[in-house]
Amino acid sequence: MKFVIDCLGGDNSPRANVLGALRTMEQHADLSVIFAGDKPAIVEELRAAGAQETMRERIEILHAPDAISGEDKPTDAIRLKKDSSMVRAFQVLRDDPAVSALVSNGSTGALVAGATLRIGRLPGIRRPAFCPILPAMTGGIVGVCDSGANVDILPEQLQQFAIMGSRYLECAFGIENPRVALLNIGVETEKGDNLRKTAYPLLESTPGINFVGNMESRDLLSGSYDLIVCDGFAGNVLIKTAEGVALELMKKLKRDICRKNRYKAGALLMKEMFREEKEFFNYQNYGGSVMLGTVKTVVKGHGSSGPDAFARCVEQAYSMQLGGMNEKIAASMAALKAQQE
Amino acid sequence: MKFVIDCLGGDNSPRANVLGALRTMEQHADLSVIFAGDKPAIVEELRAAGAQETMRERIEILHAPDAISGEDKPTDAIRLKKDSSMVRAFQVLRDDPAVSALVSNGSTGALVAGATLRIGRLPGIRRPAFCPILPAMTGGIVGVCDSGANVDILPEQLQQFAIMGSRYLECAFGIENPRVALLNIGVETEKGDNLRKTAYPLLESTPGINFVGNMESRDLLSGSYDLIVCDGFAGNVLIKTAEGVALELMKKLKRDICRKNRYKAGALLMKEMFREEKEFFNYQNYGGSVMLGTVKTVVKGHGSSGPDAFARCVEQAYSMQLGGMNEKIAASMAALKAQQE
Repeated sequence: MKFVIDCLGGDNSPRANVLGALRTMEQHADLSVIFAGDKPAIVEELRAAGAQETMRERIEILHAPDAISGEDKPTDAIRLKKDSSMVRAFQVLRDDPAVSALVSNGSTGALVAGATLRIGRLPGIRRPAFCPILPAMTGGIVGVCDSGANVDILPEQLQQFAIMGSRYLECAFGIENPRVALLNIGVETEKGDNLRKTAYPLLESTPGINFVGNMESRDLLSGSYDLIVCDGFAGNVLIKTAEGVALELMKKLKRDICRKNRYKAGALLMKEMFREEKEFFNYQNYGGSVMLGTVKTVVKGHGSSGPDAFARCVEQAYSMQLGGMNEKIAASMAALKAQQE
Repeated sequence: MKFVIDCLGGDNSPRANVLGALRTMEQHADLSVIFAGDKPAIVEELRAAGAQETMRERIEILHAPDAISGEDKPTDAIRLKKDSSMVRAFQVLRDDPAVSALVSNGSTGALVAGATLRIGRLPGIRRPAFCPILPAMTGGIVGVCDSGANVDILPEQLQQFAIMGSRYLECAFGIENPRVALLNIGVETEKGDNLRKTAYPLLESTPGINFVGNMESRDLLSGSYDLIVCDGFAGNVLIKTAEGVALELMKKLKRDICRKNRYKAGALLMKEMFREEKEFFNYQNYGGSVMLGTVKTVVKGHGSSGPDAFARCVEQAYSMQLGGMNEKIAASMAALKAQQE
């Protein structure tokens, strides 16, 4: 198995990217990588990690020192920044039949544009979608598809998100028969806007998914659902609200603790617990946001990923290949097409 | 000033409704009320509160013992349950020129249907909208309009939400020149779906509002914005995610504290602080969800409101009348119309 790793664009690049990929390679002897980015910096990281010798045969370096930043207009960046690590990584992903995945923690917009412009879609898939993973209160996880790549969508796209997300959760997390819910403003069947009202019966009749009905956003983390399907606008609101509120609440606790000595004393006893809570709500611990629907795998890590978080993204890409996710999505899409004919 | 109080449909009705209204009446000697509901139960609450004699001249009771429940289909309930407290309250609100507001904590759907079917709209307003209030981390508040009454909306409606919400925050909370932001999936001008892209320039040119641009949902509680405008679908996702995550996080802390004795000891020292946090995130403490755009005021309290929370809803209705909110909304709508001509 061979992946291309974009080594520019993250807050801790290339260090986190190189060390993260190395960690996953240590776990899986059949994994080789191509690091795309600033060659001297990458070589330096490999040397510091002592991997230059031991991993020599499993590593290639593609010198592409130009970075795409969050300020670049995504489509322009993909079209014009020909020497950027991301554009070169997409080229390799498209042209090298041995390379099956691209892992990056650079600009999300540029990754969406690159995947759309450079990498083909699976048969029948209208547009690729993002599926980030959040922690559920029961200890499990919940996926949200789409989280922002697709706004102004058609009901059939929600159906495709349900299929792609289900196969993803099965392959990457071993969740059997994932419970799929439609994000709505009430649980009753007839709730919602035109999009939701049209999508509901479509989801009910979609083969190969376990549709359990509408859900309200207050139950996002409840553990009652494995996959939430929604348009990218609502999905973006959903995950960013969850992230923002958890963060603000933890910050408020911290501020309030500092107000009184007895609170400080109490917090000292609970230090370990608070650290665990912080880790629990750190979305990086649950892996990257995977792009679903492209013929080759694209995984997007958080911009601020450290080596561990980046390693999890590479691990996700590995599980998706190992589980044959794209073949399974294609099979489900074929079953859907057969039903429609 | 005279309000009609719907005394059925809440978890603590009629007790919370009657006691809540009495508390606000104690603050404002010019406020009279009509209690609509089960007369014997209302009389009993008044007697127990010792208000039957002292408030005699400021209280009327309208016997309407039938309740509308969350299971009733809203439009049917308003059309068919003629003896329900809510339908009778809407009748009084519509027909009695002295009555300027209805306060209820019954079915939200039925209140929307009742306001739409029974109470007229202000000139130029396409449809009434809900504007609930959330706590901001800076100690202030933030309003969200619309939170669920309007899905599949037009860009002009976002403009109307901005006008109505601004006048509301000024009158009910004394916020001068409220900072209005458009809920979007990024802060850049060109972000979003068709609705947001069309609405952005409209909001920029709307007279009488302080439009500060796009905002992302992760900044909902940041205190950087006074009013968030959005379609009812996204608004519903926004507030229910915030509510759900805050609640789930507090529940998780509670569970985790019970895991170890040292955590329990720590939590004991912080008991007062945790109680304050719980109160901070209790949305009932910030008042009800007001319906904006109707010629008479409709305030919806949380179904589980106690007397204090219900009193705040009545107080809000009082502030809105005192501040002449509807006249100010009408004036802003006239200015908008003048600009468009």
